[in-house]
Parts: sequence; structure tokens; C-alpha cells
Amino acid sequence: MANDNRDAQADNDTLLKIFTIPEAPDSTLSQIETQISKNLNGFLSHHIVATDKPLSEIEQDFLSSALPERPAFVSDHTRELLDKLIAQSVHTSAPSFIGHMTSALPYFLLPLSKLMVGLNQNLVKIETSKAFTPMERQVLGMMHRMVYGQDDNFYQFWMHDADSSLGAFCSGGTVANITALWVARNNLLAAKPGFKGVSEEGLLKGMKAYGYEELAILVSERGHYSLKKAANILGIGHDSIIGIATDSQHRMDCQLLRQKCAELSAQNIKIMAIVGIAGTTETGSLDPLTEMAQIAHQYQAHFHVDAAWGGATLLSETYRPLLKGIERADSVTIDAHKQMYVPMGAGLVVFRNPKAVAAIEHHAEYILRKGSKDLGSHTLEGSRPGMAMLLYASLHIISRPGYELLINQSIEKARYFASLIEQHQDFQLVSKPELCLLTYRFVPAQVQQYLQSCSLGKALQINEVLDQLTIVMQKLQREAGKSFVSRTRIPEQGQDSQAISVFRVVLANPLTSEDILQQVLAEQQKIANEQQTLLAQLQSLIED
Amino acid sequence: MANDNRDAQADNDTLLKIFTIPEAPDSTLSQIETQISKNLNGFLSHHIVATDKPLSEIEQDFLSSALPERPAFVSDHTRELLDKLIAQSVHTSAPSFIGHMTSALPYFLLPLSKLMVGLNQNLVKIETSKAFTPMERQVLGMMHRMVYGQDDNFYQFWMHDADSSLGAFCSGGTVANITALWVARNNLLAAKPGFKGVSEEGLLKGMKAYGYEELAILVSERGHYSLKKAANILGIGHDSIIGIATDSQHRMDCQLLRQKCAELSAQNIKIMAIVGIAGTTETGSLDPLTEMAQIAHQYQAHFHVDAAWGGATLLSETYRPLLKGIERADSVTIDAHKQMYVPMGAGLVVFRNPKAVAAIEHHAEYILRKGSKDLGSHTLEGSRPGMAMLLYASLHIISRPGYELLINQSIEKARYFASLIEQHQDFQLVSKPELCLLTYRFVPAQVQQYLQSCSLGKALQINEVLDQLTIVMQKLQREAGKSFVSRTRIPEQGQDSQAISVFRVVLANPLTSEDILQQVLAEQQKIANEQQTLLAQLQSLIED
Repeated sequence: MANDNRDAQADNDTLLKIFTIPEAPDSTLSQIETQISKNLNGFLSHHIVATDKPLSEIEQDFLSSALPERPAFVSDHTRELLDKLIAQSVHTSAPSFIGHMTSALPYFLLPLSKLMVGLNQNLVKIETSKAFTPMERQVLGMMHRMVYGQDDNFYQFWMHDADSSLGAFCSGGTVANITALWVARNNLLAAKPGFKGVSEEGLLKGMKAYGYEELAILVSERGHYSLKKAANILGIGHDSIIGIATDSQHRMDCQLLRQKCAELSAQNIKIMAIVGIAGTTETGSLDPLTEMAQIAHQYQAHFHVDAAWGGATLLSETYRPLLKGIERADSVTIDAHKQMYVPMGAGLVVFRNPKAVAAIEHHAEYILRKGSKDLGSHTLEGSRPGMAMLLYASLHIISRPGYELLINQSIEKARYFASLIEQHQDFQLVSKPELCLLTYRFVPAQVQQYLQSCSLGKALQINEVLDQLTIVMQKLQREAGKSFVSRTRIPEQGQDSQAISVFRVVLANPLTSEDILQQVLAEQQKIANEQQTLLAQLQSLIED
Repeated sequence: MANDNRDAQADNDTLLKIFTIPEAPDSTLSQIETQISKNLNGFLSHHIVATDKPLSEIEQDFLSSALPERPAFVSDHTRELLDKLIAQSVHTSAPSFIGHMTSALPYFLLPLSKLMVGLNQNLVKIETSKAFTPMERQVLGMMHRMVYGQDDNFYQFWMHDADSSLGAFCSGGTVANITALWVARNNLLAAKPGFKGVSEEGLLKGMKAYGYEELAILVSERGHYSLKKAANILGIGHDSIIGIATDSQHRMDCQLLRQKCAELSAQNIKIMAIVGIAGTTETGSLDPLTEMAQIAHQYQAHFHVDAAWGGATLLSETYRPLLKGIERADSVTIDAHKQMYVPMGAGLVVFRNPKAVAAIEHHAEYILRKGSKDLGSHTLEGSRPGMAMLLYASLHIISRPGYELLINQSIEKARYFASLIEQHQDFQLVSKPELCLLTYRFVPAQVQQYLQSCSLGKALQINEVLDQLTIVMQKLQREAGKSFVSRTRIPEQGQDSQAISVFRVVLANPLTSEDILQQVLAEQQKIANEQQTLLAQLQSLIED
């Protein structure tokens, strides 16, 4: 018994050490940390295995559902993480990883992230965040000003006002979009005599109280899938998301939008919101926001702009005009972890009217008491980390002109890549870059020529083979591990054409050079030339 | 013009440096990082100003809404962060900060967090996370097994299954609770002949299709405010959250629950979900889960358990029985950033039935294609960081027996503090610790005695003064900066008594010693003795 007690005490002491004794400077973990600090890209390039391993094989290292019954030494476990997890992760910051919305990160964000984790603030309430709350309110104020450009008096009055909020910081664009449409729904079905509001009484009674039979959310067919998710969660249903066809540049066709609005109104379907996209996920296209704002105003619909990707473009004086009309939006989503170069997990939504968030206000006894400045009274999430600090620091250290350089560079790089593709006889540019995204595919010169005048039936057959070619090329390039582009399916040109598979490229990484872009194309050409069967099929189709 | 170009190039080069050149070892930021690595608590104790500064003063440092037009040097900005932000933040990991659900963190999580940020994976899809996806699936499997204890075959079959998911990792308990109730709602109003399901057609048509007039979610009056938020977002409305009174130990009164269920059913109100709480936020109380599971089964209601706080208790063989019945829940919320000692931003929900998440499945063209193992098809959030790695590492390094020690220690510490309070003649223990939470207040011995036999009217008067005393004491203690307890309002004993203000204490920090607890109480005694006016009021009330 005495022995047992001594053992227990010893176990206990060992355990407390992990909370009190830092990793030794020569431990595996400390060494890794030093490597990361000195040369992150070098560390990642060295430790991440470049070539692709099938997922089924990787899964073999993650099969045990049993809870470990023996503690692992930190160094042993770190080595295991290196071998099994890090080695098979994705080098998202590699300059040749241009398939998704990832990038290299500014170095100063690494130690700052560690500081943030060490501080472990919880932004839900001031009692666990204190200065982090006014700091986040300032960041929201800055983002609000970037979008809406109100004057100093406006921000002086509203930024730190206890009963309102200029927006909500959150984990990402999806939560931001849900929050915006949640506010829109609750303001549409607000309390009035005889009805306590949708937040209290729910959607069924809300619709009855206002005499609506259905709600609709109108968005271009290129809208992000999170909008459907929002409609689902909010109880409105996917069907209420009315996709409006786009023009040849993947932008909302406002004539069709007007038609649809008139149609819906005639059917007593209330237009709850119109959503504009400022930087579609697939092609980076920008909806005509000013015209959409007018239509939304006409139908008294909430006008939301999903600028998760494109919002940062507002920091560029050169390209800011592309987003003209965004200042008329009722709410705007922006992802700081995209073109603002902050690590994953930082999104936000801003509202033109600081009182808009009252529609989703909530309180509790132990926190978020009425009149408190706790940010948690107006957020979808509860406990939240101090990520806003990373955006705060980036805005100060990079500054607006620095962001402008980054944004401009990305757009110009996309134009350069587009010109490379257009000059190449065997590639076809499918969507031109408005921002730094573009799509293209491999189509042998002869086939391109043939497609221009062949029958629709033949074109369908050819595109089917080209789709297979795109899919296999993308897969082989990814597996080879030198570079990565993604793929998607979009209509070739505007609303009436058929959907085709394309390579999708996002050029936001400041370290992606023109050389790398040339290499990506050269590698694809090489992979394509090796697809003898598919190329022969194409040949026979055009000779047929 | 040539000069302009040269300047632009120079600006550009400077900017690229932040992405390519690490902080110098002697830079301010690197020095801070070293201090954090060597002695986090020392760093925080040194840099965080202990005494309270009014929020209005702190806000003076966060007034500018203008976007910075000049880049700041990293070192200058770091110093600014230290002076303005860090200095006025909260030392949430201080052993004497026992008012909220925060704690010291294991040291190894600091460098691992930095590694996670540097890797910048995005868990929404395999293309940006690769091994992180199977790793997160394993973590969900482990948490599922902790709750439901299925056999190896079960996990072998389901853990990496493309069409299902054992749960969802997310930013915190609120999103987890919303996800669980979203699944419950969508499964209740699932597709059937003539109806495409609530996800497609929305709540209005769903209710009609199933012939329900209202939905209800039953939860004890001590439930977390996030459940109301969930009802609001999901379109069901706050009113549908039916709060059931609790017994004298703040646990759901199952007799009342049965009564209410029968009543609602008679009114054609469908019971969508019954929610059990395993560790209430205010008192750490545990609902009688087995009996609740039976009732939920009887009414074919989804049984959700909010174990955001208490879930980790399952790792303790000694205290696991307290949560008996949790294995019958359809879904369970657990926060890894609470009693699993992971930094802020890590919550999860597990589902007994791996097919349950099909109710919220979504796809897109460029990711989350059908048949892919992308985790993003079953989560509320979209892009998400690799936080699961921190839980994965903690589970291996601390291991189940290590967690058991931590959990047991916390509970025993709470019992020790409860005994201190009970022994002290001037303090009153209001809620006994079931887990490591308790509530109490300062009530001079004479007043305690008087309250036992006085009239209800007199008790009300006295409690009003005691509430003032509690509120002012908590505020003064917080402002003095040596220690922190929180406060809330709860009924003194069970359902019929009036609500009183109490100190609330959470004893999860392994570094909180018995000494510190004695000091907290001594400090409070001292503060109380200084409240001459209130004490005199009490005296006159009992002499009256």
C-alpha cells in the first residue's frame, strides 16, 4: 500500500513535469522547432515525402482506435509524427503547390502563433481575453472600414460599443457565410406585434406571421457550396438556393436575376437574400455587385457578398475598383487565412449596419451579460482562440501598401501564366484570370482547331475524352509530387455550354516564380504526351 | 519611371523577405519565443500586468480603424504587442486563475502548435491535408471508442469509411452541439416518398410532410446557452427549448421530464431531441443519463449528451461510472480544449451510428466529390486547421492513465476546496463538486444561522445583500489581480428556491495547489471584512 502510494506520487510528479518543465534544447522536438524557425521551407521539403503514397497505405498507420495505455516519450512520439504524419502531409506552402488557396506564410507569424497558443485566450468573453477583445474589435473595425469606408466618427462611435458589433471573427468563410444569412433570416422575420421573432418562435411561425410561403436565396451558379450548407442549417433548404446562370465570364447574369426576382415575387416567394461572389472558388470571377445591390434594394432583400477569397483585393488601390458595389452590401465575408496570409482558421464577416447583429444576440448568466462587451454575444461559435492577433500583426507589419504589392503581383502572375497557356499550341485557357485564379486544359492543337467547327455531338465525344485526359494528367502530376494543380468541372463558355473538366490554378503564393509556372506546363505537356491511348482516341475522333 | 521601377522592385524584395528570411535569433520576437520556450509561466507572469485596468482605458490603445499605410518593423510591432496587448491580456494558465475552464498547457504542445501552423494543412479535403485526414479519423475513432466502446471490428470497418464518419472535429463545443442537433433535425425530417428531406425542402415543408405542428428539445435548466443558439440557427426557435427543472443537485428531474414528454406528445408537439448534460458549465453537474436515454428511446427522440466539459472524465476508470448511460447517446459533444488540455479551438462531436452524418452530407465539384474521404463533407465548418494533431499527440504522450491522474486529481482538489469552505464558518458551499467545479458564497456565520429559520421575505432581503456582497467581492478580487474566481446565478437548492449570486470555481489546472486554494479563501475573507456597509446591512437585517 505504501509502495502503491509512492508509485502514484511518482507518476503524478512525472505528469506534472509536462506542465512545468520545458522541452530540453537538445530534444527532438526542440530541434525540429529550431529547424522550422531557421528554414521552414527547407524543413518541409526535407521531411514531406514528395511522391504520392496511396491513401489506403497511409491509413495503415492510423488504424488503432484503442486509447494508449502507456505514455509515450515526447521525443519518441515526435519521431513518430515526423515519420507517419508530417512525411505524408501536404507541402501547402510549396511555390509549386498552386492548386488550392494556400500559400507560404510570413515568417513572423510562426513565433506569434506560438505566443498566441501560449496565451490561450478565449475571445468569447472579456474575463478570458481582456485586451484581446478590444484588439479584435479594432481588427473588425479596420476590415469594416476597408469594405465600407465610413468616417472616423462612425468608428469612434461604434467600434467598441457594447450593444453592437461591426462583424464577427470566426474560424472561416463557411461560418462567416452562415452567420451572415442567419442575421438576414432573423432580421427578415423579426419580432413585431403578436410575434416574438424567428429566434424565439422558429421558422414555421415566422413565415406564418409574415405571410410568406417560401423564402429564396439567389446566387450565381458559381457560388460556394457553403451557401447550400447555410440554407440547410438555417432550415430554409437547398431548394431555396436559386442558382442564376452566369455570363461567359462566370459572372452573375443580372438580366436573368431580374427575371427570376420578378417571377418569385409573383409566386409570393420572399427573396430573403441575394448573394454576390467576389472571387468565385473555381475561377476567381467577380459578380457585378453594383447592379446586384440595386436589385436587392428593389426587392428589399439582404445583400450579402461572399468575398472570402477576393475581399483582400480591396487593399489594392489598383484592383479595388473590380469590387465596386461591395460597399452597398449588408454583409461581407472575408477569409484572413486566404489572401491575407494568416494561418488556417481565421475568417470574418462584417455588417454595414452595426445594429444588424442584434438579430442573433444571446446572453447567459455567467458570461455575456447584457451590456457587457463580450464578443461572444454575437458569434455563432462560443469559445474561440485569439487568431485576430495574427491579422492585427499582419495588417501592421505588412501594411496596406504591402498587401497591395502582394495582391497586384498575384494577379499579374496569373496574367503571365494565362499568356503562357495561350501561347502554347496544345493548351487551352478556359477561364481568364480576373483575380489570380484561372482554369485551362490540355487540348492538342489539331483537336482545338477541329472543335471550332465540328458538330455538337462530336464535340461532346471529344470533350469526354479530354475530360479523361485532364483527370489522369492531374492525378499523375500530383502523384509525381513535383507540383500540384487542382481540377474542377465548369461550363466551357457561359451558361449554355456543357461542363468540362479543367485544371484549376491559384497563384497567391508570393514565392511562385515564372520559372515554376513554365515548369508546371512543361511537366504537363510531358505527362500528356505519355497518354498514348487517349491521344489516339482523340486522333481517331477528329479523323473519323 | 526607371526610378519608380527600381523602387517598386526594392519594395517587392523587402516584402518577399518576410516570406523567406526567418527572424534573426537576437530579434525581439525570437527572444520572446525563447523566453516562452524556456519558461512560459515566467514569461506570462512577468509580462501580463496583474492589476486590473478599466476596459475603457485599454480601449484607448485600440481606437484606430485606419489601415496602416506604413509597414512596421517586426521588432517594433512586437514591442507594441507586448506593451498594449499581452500586458493587458489574461493569464489564463495561472494556477490562481480558477474562475473559468482554462488551465496550464503541457509544454510539448507549444512547439507542436508551431509545427501545425507551419504545416498549415486544411482538413476540409485530402488534397490539402493527406495524412492529416486519416489521423483525424483515428482521433475521432479513439473518442468514439472512449464513449461507445465498440469492438475492433467496428472501428476497422467504419473509421476510414468514405461514406460515413464517426463524428466531426470542429472549433469548439458550440459548433459540436449545433452539428449534433442539425443531424437530429435532418434525420427526423428525412426524405421519404413525396418529400426530399428537410435539407432540400426546408423546415416548413418538412413539418407538413410529417404532420408535426411543433418541435421540442428538452434539456435541464442548467443547459449551456449554445443549445438555445442551436435552436435559433436551425430555425426551431428558442421557445422550442423546454427547460426542465433540476433536483437539489442541479440534475435533470426525470419525473418532470416524463411528465413534460407526455404533455408535449398529447399536444402533437414532436420531441426532436432530449439533451443530457455531463458536466454543466456552472456547477459541473451530471444528468441521470441512463434514465434519460430510456425516455428518449420511448419517445423516439434523438438523445444528445453535451459532455463538452465532462467527457474527458471517461478516461478515468475511477470516475467513468459517473457518466453511465452516455454510451446510449446518439451523439456526444466533447471539448478537447477543456479537460483534455489542448489549446483553444478544438471541439468534437461523435455519433453512435456512423451513418448518422449522412443527414448533413454535402458535395462540391472541385472537392468533397462523392466517394472521397474528405472530412469536409460532414462538417459544419469548411476550411479547418490540423488541431486534431494536438489531441492525437496528447493522447499518446499523456496516455489514458495520465489523463486519469489529471481528472482524478482535479476532482479530489475540488473536494478538498469544498471541505475548506465547509469548515470555514463564514463561507457557504452552494453546490458540491461532482466533477471539479463548485460554487459557494461568503455568508457570515451569524447570517447563515439566521437564514436557517427566518421567514421567506427576510431571506429574500438578506440574499439581496449577499448578492451585492458576492458581486463586489468577485470584482475586487479580480481587480487586485492575485487570483480570479468567476460568478454566476443559480438557485440555492433545486427547483423551487430563488436564484442567488455565487462564486464559481473550476479546478482543472494541475498546477493549482492546496496552498493557493487556502490563499484564495483568505483573500476573499479579507475583502469581505472590508465591506463594512454591506456587512452592517446584513447585521441590521438579522437584528431587525
